[in-house]
Parts: sequence; structure tokens; C-alpha cells
Amino acid sequence: MQGVTAPAGFRAAGVTAGIKASGKPDLALVVNEGPQRAAAAVFTSNRVAAAPVHWSREVIKDGRVDAVILNSGGANACTGAPGFQDTHRTAEEVASLLGVSATDVVVCSTGLIGERLPMEKILAGAAEASGALSAEGGAGAARSIMTTDTVPKQAERTGSGYTIGGMAKGAGMLAPALATMLVVITTDAVLNPAQLDAALRAATGVSFDRADSDGCMSTNDTVVLMSSGAAGVTPDEAEFAALLSELCTDLALQLLADAEGASHDIAVQTVNAASLEDALEVSRAVSRSNLFKTAIFGNDPNWGRVLSEVGTTKAAFEASDLDVTINGVMVCRGCGVGEDRSLVDLASAREVSVVIDLKAGTEQATVWTNDLTHDYVEENSAYSS
Amino acid sequence: MQGVTAPAGFRAAGVTAGIKASGKPDLALVVNEGPQRAAAAVFTSNRVAAAPVHWSREVIKDGRVDAVILNSGGANACTGAPGFQDTHRTAEEVASLLGVSATDVVVCSTGLIGERLPMEKILAGAAEASGALSAEGGAGAARSIMTTDTVPKQAERTGSGYTIGGMAKGAGMLAPALATMLVVITTDAVLNPAQLDAALRAATGVSFDRADSDGCMSTNDTVVLMSSGAAGVTPDEAEFAALLSELCTDLALQLLADAEGASHDIAVQTVNAASLEDALEVSRAVSRSNLFKTAIFGNDPNWGRVLSEVGTTKAAFEASDLDVTINGVMVCRGCGVGEDRSLVDLASAREVSVVIDLKAGTEQATVWTNDLTHDYVEENSAYSS
Repeated sequence: MQGVTAPAGFRAAGVTAGIKASGKPDLALVVNEGPQRAAAAVFTSNRVAAAPVHWSREVIKDGRVDAVILNSGGANACTGAPGFQDTHRTAEEVASLLGVSATDVVVCSTGLIGERLPMEKILAGAAEASGALSAEGGAGAARSIMTTDTVPKQAERTGSGYTIGGMAKGAGMLAPALATMLVVITTDAVLNPAQLDAALRAATGVSFDRADSDGCMSTNDTVVLMSSGAAGVTPDEAEFAALLSELCTDLALQLLADAEGASHDIAVQTVNAASLEDALEVSRAVSRSNLFKTAIFGNDPNWGRVLSEVGTTKAAFEASDLDVTINGVMVCRGCGVGEDRSLVDLASAREVSVVIDLKAGTEQATVWTNDLTHDYVEENSAYSS
Repeated sequence: MQGVTAPAGFRAAGVTAGIKASGKPDLALVVNEGPQRAAAAVFTSNRVAAAPVHWSREVIKDGRVDAVILNSGGANACTGAPGFQDTHRTAEEVASLLGVSATDVVVCSTGLIGERLPMEKILAGAAEASGALSAEGGAGAARSIMTTDTVPKQAERTGSGYTIGGMAKGAGMLAPALATMLVVITTDAVLNPAQLDAALRAATGVSFDRADSDGCMSTNDTVVLMSSGAAGVTPDEAEFAALLSELCTDLALQLLADAEGASHDIAVQTVNAASLEDALEVSRAVSRSNLFKTAIFGNDPNWGRVLSEVGTTKAAFEASDLDVTINGVMVCRGCGVGEDRSLVDLASAREVSVVIDLKAGTEQATVWTNDLTHDYVEENSAYSS
């Protein structure tokens, strides 16, 4: 799979710049060769945002992006004015190498907070990557943005005469040092920045925004979408939106499946809610309950821990109406004991389905999360700096 | 220490009713013998509240409580109308034994959700407890409400001519099966229900409400305050309020110190906030961060994980102003690297102090929490039903 180089009009590369002590690939470059260079992006809402986020927010404003440079091995967050200058210098180097404007270069970083980047290595790596750019470079780029990820994440979708490709990094939000999620998506369809922005916000709203591995929000999260227009096809907007949402959901679930230390992927679905907001609030509250998440780790279909979280929300429901179904078994019916909980098999598969029926309307939403395990504690305590 | 029987006018007892399979004490009775019987109470805000909470909310409305019966070994939550009838029956039995009105008997339960109580044992236990009531029974009562607590929790304060005593159960909020917090506080001062209510709400607002071990809210939390007036002293209201807040904070910190699986007690203080709400929001956000809590378990003064949580709040601050001090070392100054983090000693004491300076005003607040440990995961996964 080629990921970001699956659509026509893109070249990419991943190299080892020496930023990571491990000697693994740590720098990626993705270049839009046009003929269009439209783009949109969404960023972390964390107010303690990293320098590359501050920079890239400005870059995206005119709806044009020529290249994205991404490094692992350092987040360049909480590094002050010098850190911002490092990001600026990186963009200028890429611009110079590619013959484009620095204000059309998005910069993404991931790694530890509070440390300056090794700029000599970054700049030398940028030069090496620009020389290695290839229309088959997507897979290499995807590998070089991995941090605690155990596998690279890529996805592709084929539309009517055009292609969408993407890559992502992030071991859920479960990784040490905040597990930044970085995503680059490309398409050769003909779309203007406003269309890309609308489609991207809709797609991330139902995919990455609903993946909540441990409730912790990174300072560096970035999702950027670029179109080259190289396919020469103006897509049906509804089809494009649907495919983009599919691709983003595919990548989001790949992130959860690789969440550090997790032994279960849990889909928490709230149904028959009075509003979408209610459904999301309930699913998110349950997804963030440490007691619920440890119960699932213990293969325990503990519906009491689900209900006690539902009870903390402002969603419309009557407590006595609540049903909870775990892996198809309605273990709680009408806020009381339902079917035999021993019928629930949590041990034989990684996937877990929890359905909460509010009986208050017709809306539904799913939030995906992971269980809380010994390995989560281990990897986030023993090995962080 | 006598706890709830330290003030004059109260008798108490703790017995083994056989509710717990372990054969440990599991039922307590606290009786106000007057001459006054004024009372106030606060309850969980969880909308999935247990039967005894529904019952006791009605009991407290007239400001009179003659007795409190508490059982461990079963929460009587999510048990429907039959569960409510069990609570009602329990109150009637206590009323009959003591010659008081059932509508003046508060009932508290703690244990697993979704299971009916063994009523024969409860009723026999109530009879045994009423026969064992003693003015020295506070300590026995405190032991019999323990669930996963490793030590009983009691506190006493002496005012000008009067006494306040209290007992609490709850192993933080870290225990299996939701770790309900039950607290009974007594005083022999002369106070009316409105005065008790005002003092209790003020005291719980700065004590139990700011202890947030794992962010999970029980279905059964109850704090009840009774005055007997037996000292014949009408206290200075400010003095009483201050002593009550001290006593509640004492009990709250005892709960955190006994939090299951925790190896650190963490005081997260936010200073120089624009408002009390801002200070609380910031302290609470940090207190609920699994990444921060695992870092403390690993003795890692990871200020990046503090800042990234601060950044998710709506509190007033400029990101570039933020300072973070851990155990007296300002490891983050102005949102960047501060003093040498290796100067922070997290290994040699259970207590950890985190101070976040927002530089946006003059308000401050502290939220107390625990670290996230292997034992937390173990005790909430392997041993829950």
C-alpha cells in the first residue's frame, strides 16, 4: 500500500535523520506536485500547542500547501520563541530545497515536550528526504513518523476517477510523551480549499474526534489534507465526503488497534438518545472511566460501572429505563439485572461492543476506546523520561 | 478515638451481620439521643442513585434524623422498586427497635451494584446493633463500614464547649465496585438544620468535593451531619464552620491515603487564577490525567503532561506564562524548561505537591488525587465481580 502516494501528483520519502537515539527512520516529507495545491487542516485544540502547530495554522490560512515535513523524536512543544524559530527554519529549508514558499510548508513534530530539536540533523534530513522523493515513497514516509507505534498506518480509498490516500502515526493516545496523532491525507481529485475544509472537518468529527483512548489530548495533533487535482476529476461532493470519512475512520481504528498496552478495543455506542450531543456525552463519559476500562481488562462485563458513568452526564434519560448490552448480551435491563453476565465472552477477542440504550430519542453515536491495563501503566511510567 | 461518639448525646455500634462473605463486621448504627435531633446531608449527584440515597433524601427534608444505619457488602443500587422496599423495610425495623419514626432514619449502603441485599441478615443485624449501642461505640461503627479500606477512618475536633466527631469509609474512589464514600459526622453543639446544612455544604465543598482519586463517582455517596445539642452550647458559626471543614478535610485525606493501589498522594494546587472556578478546573483536569498519574507512579516529574492538561481547560491564562513546581522545584518556567528536573525527589515520600501558576489573578484551589499504578489496575480488574 502506498498511502499518501497512492493518488497521482504526490511524492514522498522517509529517512533516518538521526533525531531518534534508536537509529530508526524519523523524518518524512510529502510533496504535492500539482497541478493544484489546495489544502485544509485541523489541529489540536490544546491551548498549550507546539511550535509547529502555531506555524502550520498560519500556513493553512490561504488554503495552499506545497509540502509537509514531519519529524518524530521531538515534539518541539514548550520550547518558546527559539522553538518557533526552529520550525520556521525547517520550513525555509524545505522551501529552498523544493523551490517553493516557506509559507506553503506545513511542519509536524512528535516526541517529548520541552526539548529543542537537533536542528543540524533536521536540516540535513530534509535535504536527504528531498533527494529521495518518490511516487512510491508513501510507505517509507509512514514508517518514519512512527514513535511508539508498532506498525505503520496507511489507508486508501478509490472514488469515481480519483483516489484518496493517507498515513497516520500515534499509538492511540496511550503512548508515552502524549502520543501525538499526525495524519497526512492526499487526493488527486479536483477540489478547492473550502471544499477540502468542509469535508475534512466532517470526516474528522466522526473519526479521530471519537477515538478516545485515554482522554489525554496532545499538544501537537495535526491532520492535513491536500489535493493535487492530478486526476482531473471533480468529484461528487457527497461521495468524496463519504470516502474521506471512511478513510479517516479506518486510520482512527488502526491507531486504537495499536494503542500501547491495550488488550481490548472497545466501541461504546449510545443509542436512542435525544440528541447527538447526548449520545456523544454518554459514550465519552463511559470511554473515560478508569473503573470501566479496568473491568474490561479483567474480562468483567461490569454494567454497574457503565451505569454509574451514564449517571454523571446531563443527557436526557430516565434512570429506570437504561439498558446496557455488552457483546450482544443485555446484561442490564431497565437499570437492573438483565441476562446472565456469564454469557458475555470478553476473553476470546480484542473487540468489545458496549451499547447503552437511553430510550430518549433516535440519535446515536459511537466513541472508541481501549481498556486500562498493566502495560498501559508500565509503558507510561517506567519508560517515560 | 471515638469518632461519632466523641460528642455527647450519641451512641453507636458495629456488628457482623453476615452480609459480607468474609465474616468481617458489616453493619453500623449511629443514634442521636438528643435532646436535639437536627441534621443535614449531602448526597451523590449521580443520576443513577442507589435506593438508600433516594430514601435518605426524603428523610433529610424535615431536618431531623434520629438514627443512621449503614451496611457494607451491598450497594442496593440498580435494584429497582424491590430494592427501594428493602431500604424502607430496613428503616422501619430500626425505627421499631429504637421507638422512633422510620422517616427519621437515614440508610446508607455500600458494595456491589445490581444485587439485592440479604434482608434477613440486615434485619437481624439491626436488632443486634441496637442492643449493642454504646457511648463508646464509634470505633466499632467505623470498622464495620469498611469495604476495601485497610484502616478505619475517624476524626474529632474540639470547639469552645462542644465537640465534633466523624467517621468515613471509602478507599479513595479507587476501590472495586465504585468505592462509595459514606461519612457520618456528629456534634453536641446546639445548631438548627439550616445552620447545619450551610456549614456542611461549605465544608464538603472544600474537602470531599476536591478529593478526586480516579474521577469516578459513586451511586451511593452520602455525608450526614447530626447535632444532639447535648453540650448545651450554641457555637460561634464561623468557628463551627472552620472546625467542620478541618474535620472533613482530615477525613478526605484519610480516604486518599488509603486509596487502593496508590503509591502517592498528590496535591494539585492551582495558584494565581482569575477565579476559583478556573483554579478548580485546572487542578481537576490535571488530577484526572492518566498520563500524569502514571508519570508520578514512575517517579517522573513530567511537567509536559501537566501543561498539556492545563491546555485543555477554559481557564484564563497565557500559555507562555505557565509555571509548574513539583515538590518545590520549578521544573517548568514560562512554559519552558525551568530548574533541573533531577532535583525533584518523588521516590522518598508518598506526598507529592504540584503547583501550577496561571499568573492570571489571585484565586487558588487544591484538588487531591492519587497516582495510577499497577495495583490500581490489578485491584479493579482481577478482583471485581
